[in-house]
Amino acid sequence: MSDILDIAIVGGGVTGTYCAWRLTGDQGITGAKVAMFEYSDRIGGRLYTKTIPGMPNIAAELGGMRYIPPSEEDDASNQPMVSNLIDALGLPSHVFLMGNPKPGPDGQPIGEKDNIFFLRGKHLKMKEQSDPDKVPYNLSWNERGKSVNDLQVFAFDLLVPKNRRNSLDALMDTTVFGHPLYTYGFWNLMSQTLSSEAYQFMKDAGGYDANVANANAVAQLPATEYANTSGFKAITGGYQRLPLTLAEKAAAQGTDIRMNRRISRIERGEDGVYSLTVVETETQLVYADLGGLREVTRDKEGVEPSIVKAKDIILALPRRSLELIEWVEWKQPDVKAMVDSVLIQDAFKLLLAYDYPWWEAQGLVAGRSITDLPVRQIYYFGTEEDQPHGEKGNTRSLLMASYNDITTVPFWKGLEKGAPFLGRLPEGVKGVAKEKSGSGEEGTPVPLAECIATDAMVASAHAQILAVHGLVDVDKPYSAIYHDWSGDPYGGGWHEWKAGFRYDKLMPAIRQPVPKDRVFICGEAYSNNQGWVEGCLQTAEHVLLEKFDLPWPAYLAHLKDQKAAVLGP
Amino acid sequence: MSDILDIAIVGGGVTGTYCAWRLTGDQGITGAKVAMFEYSDRIGGRLYTKTIPGMPNIAAELGGMRYIPPSEEDDASNQPMVSNLIDALGLPSHVFLMGNPKPGPDGQPIGEKDNIFFLRGKHLKMKEQSDPDKVPYNLSWNERGKSVNDLQVFAFDLLVPKNRRNSLDALMDTTVFGHPLYTYGFWNLMSQTLSSEAYQFMKDAGGYDANVANANAVAQLPATEYANTSGFKAITGGYQRLPLTLAEKAAAQGTDIRMNRRISRIERGEDGVYSLTVVETETQLVYADLGGLREVTRDKEGVEPSIVKAKDIILALPRRSLELIEWVEWKQPDVKAMVDSVLIQDAFKLLLAYDYPWWEAQGLVAGRSITDLPVRQIYYFGTEEDQPHGEKGNTRSLLMASYNDITTVPFWKGLEKGAPFLGRLPEGVKGVAKEKSGSGEEGTPVPLAECIATDAMVASAHAQILAVHGLVDVDKPYSAIYHDWSGDPYGGGWHEWKAGFRYDKLMPAIRQPVPKDRVFICGEAYSNNQGWVEGCLQTAEHVLLEKFDLPWPAYLAHLKDQKAAVLGP
Repeated sequence: MSDILDIAIVGGGVTGTYCAWRLTGDQGITGAKVAMFEYSDRIGGRLYTKTIPGMPNIAAELGGMRYIPPSEEDDASNQPMVSNLIDALGLPSHVFLMGNPKPGPDGQPIGEKDNIFFLRGKHLKMKEQSDPDKVPYNLSWNERGKSVNDLQVFAFDLLVPKNRRNSLDALMDTTVFGHPLYTYGFWNLMSQTLSSEAYQFMKDAGGYDANVANANAVAQLPATEYANTSGFKAITGGYQRLPLTLAEKAAAQGTDIRMNRRISRIERGEDGVYSLTVVETETQLVYADLGGLREVTRDKEGVEPSIVKAKDIILALPRRSLELIEWVEWKQPDVKAMVDSVLIQDAFKLLLAYDYPWWEAQGLVAGRSITDLPVRQIYYFGTEEDQPHGEKGNTRSLLMASYNDITTVPFWKGLEKGAPFLGRLPEGVKGVAKEKSGSGEEGTPVPLAECIATDAMVASAHAQILAVHGLVDVDKPYSAIYHDWSGDPYGGGWHEWKAGFRYDKLMPAIRQPVPKDRVFICGEAYSNNQGWVEGCLQTAEHVLLEKFDLPWPAYLAHLKDQKAAVLGP
Repeated sequence: MSDILDIAIVGGGVTGTYCAWRLTGDQGITGAKVAMFEYSDRIGGRLYTKTIPGMPNIAAELGGMRYIPPSEEDDASNQPMVSNLIDALGLPSHVFLMGNPKPGPDGQPIGEKDNIFFLRGKHLKMKEQSDPDKVPYNLSWNERGKSVNDLQVFAFDLLVPKNRRNSLDALMDTTVFGHPLYTYGFWNLMSQTLSSEAYQFMKDAGGYDANVANANAVAQLPATEYANTSGFKAITGGYQRLPLTLAEKAAAQGTDIRMNRRISRIERGEDGVYSLTVVETETQLVYADLGGLREVTRDKEGVEPSIVKAKDIILALPRRSLELIEWVEWKQPDVKAMVDSVLIQDAFKLLLAYDYPWWEAQGLVAGRSITDLPVRQIYYFGTEEDQPHGEKGNTRSLLMASYNDITTVPFWKGLEKGAPFLGRLPEGVKGVAKEKSGSGEEGTPVPLAECIATDAMVASAHAQILAVHGLVDVDKPYSAIYHDWSGDPYGGGWHEWKAGFRYDKLMPAIRQPVPKDRVFICGEAYSNNQGWVEGCLQTAEHVLLEKFDLPWPAYLAHLKDQKAAVLGP
């Protein structure tokens, strides 16, 4: 049997594991030799679930955390692929609450309307954002009284006639002020539409810088999915279960999964077979500058790179990871332009574990509070005893103290050095540290040291949490973990199309950037659902169906006649 | 004679040309074979002066524009190197006005106090920033009534005792809240010192995001040099005259200046001699996406790279340019950490030329107005007839419509594509375009096409200028040029030390990052005067004195006994 792989998959996130699962499964390519290479010691990529000691049934999500289910079974809107995949794999799911689950007077869940806005040093409740006398932004007459969502809808209504809004095609063909909509950056377009203060209000009170970033207006202008009424779902036990399950099944089907392997270079041989240079890496806890403790994956010293040959390559990677692989074709101007067509957006999450949900005293149960302080978004996650299979009487609770992006990431980067926040093991809980060698020092096991926050991060988050909630003090958290997605090899948390690209036409091209080469790109970065697992699956399935001639996936059989709507362009 | 260079200088900015001038001059190394390699077709790097048709005596600065002269001749404070160098080279200079040159009632120039702040949709005059009822920020009791500068002084006074402020050493040894000052990011520290609103006011009304960026607090905390009263000077005819003069003299002294040469790789031979891979580039005007016209330097097609050998190498380059050169040593963890110790900060300038200085009707004569709109800073430059040797009766005038950085750069990046702003040639002025081939189209000469702004940029800047000045309309500019410094090979406009680095100790190390290698780094990026020419000269002179044993430069003879103060660490 030849040593040559039929297919080398690079990247062990949800895209790579999905490709491996499909290619080696019942509907896959019989007898195909498939290997998947993952840089770190972890399957999951930007899906990364931790379990914090003392709250075994709460998923602490450092990356992606939710999806949007279609409203009916055969509905191809929203995110049918991930929803159906999760069901098909038998993964349990639950509603991801954005507000109080108890119904209000109208019988509906009351959403986040009592959650807090703390903006420009002023407190208001989310429901008061339509009260112009409470909103500390100098809005113009026709902007006053509009919520952040109302402003977005207003701008959309003002700029794009109704008959232009029913498809991506129609939006791409729309012109605004005489130019195609896709040539505008969203910020540029808003500066011709709303007051600067309205834009700032949308940025501050929307929670995400990314939602108003100067990315392609076609992607940014349609009213956001972050409305309080959006129905989100989550995988019980954490989103990382999806890639882990896919990887497990792929391995059982014969995929050769190679962890701690960096692909440093791709070269095409004269016979058309590719040589991949494989560098062995190791993932270790190391003591970093100023006493910080950090998990680092880096090349293993003293090990020579090896060469693996493959007929086809799937790069299931975000933009920065692509750029970190040497390949002569990246330098071709048209390929470079394609790779360069998306913005890389930084994102950061900090999670704090408390002995009890002190925020419930303020009526805060689920969803988020929002501020212009560097924490930006605070999500009230659950209490252990309220979870499915939760320990009764265990009131430990999780707060996502910060979910922030782009302009506020440097604030937290400045706090990454220094002493780790050791916190304390909650009563009755035994140490659960996964010991990693190589720290160069003996020491007591550190809970969750892979993602441990620093003292300085926790102190700063604590002060901001007090300010947002108008409190004098609350108990300190007993554990704190974080992840900054802006470092290599990720580059950022997610991607956004740049202005000026008609990306519906670009997407098919970038999936096989060099027509003569069987090197394929898929993942969230160059998709029509950037930042979502759905975008990973859509681009992966395009590659599998079109480049590998796989049949339509069984788990989507009921949506076969809606293929175009399911996969997007 | 050997083909091996004694010294290869990489980079034709002020640092590289200064090194070439010194090494081949009277005080240089007799008989040394020196060559300087410049990537583009232009000497100057981030000093880039244009002359706009119709205003031949106004320097339109797309990059650095000013320096701070010492108050007395033998004063080693502020920027003695650049000041003395300019004088020694016989370059004429003049006062760079930050306000109305006519004296006020006290006999002093009246500064910018009547210039405009337009913040959060409210107008105030700069002098009104101390009026708490006019400042649209929710400041705390003890912050109210303080100008941006007052707030900075207040924070400095609060955190650092007086006896710790007299030297960089003392500042480095200072602790704040129990930790060394240099371990703090400035934003992090301010979040423990001032209200979030005060920080936002400093950011918005200070004009530069960079001044409050989360860089090393030791560099950021001392009160800023941008006070209205600072005395700035400028080279008459433009700052680019400095590197151009140095290059001209260096060439006359025997430096081999090689333009349009990219150094792609450095390799050390077994004999200790370095091989530099030299790629020929070409600089052309090209029609870009959506009809844009852009000057681009790129590798020449069909030309094989050549190898040049050199005993010593001076990399007179900013961080991104360093990283674009392949050198095996960059991967060494300690070298990587050094290179990585500075933040690269984006910067952008847009200049508009008008038939007359309409802003004088509002009493605006010089200095800047400031806004939180994406233009951020508007500088009122001069009128042709008021310049030294200016044409009498010629009222054409220059406005720096935008000088912005970091968070607002993406706004302007979104406007880079699309039709160029062709404007019009002012009456009586003949076309002055420097024709460049390769555009692929015949056409009329385009004034200053190398830096031509787009229609969309000019339209957006125009709208913002009207808003800042509270005007209904003014005449459109007749010419518009811009430069975004965030693109390759520059990477950004300037650099700032990251928090956590004791950079006074790091600077000497990074000048020769690998002790066994005679490869030296100098320039603004890793200096104690980042963003200033002074930092270029300080680091260059350190290398020349210590690594090449040059004598103390003649032009600084009177400051020889103040060497440590002049050169910094």
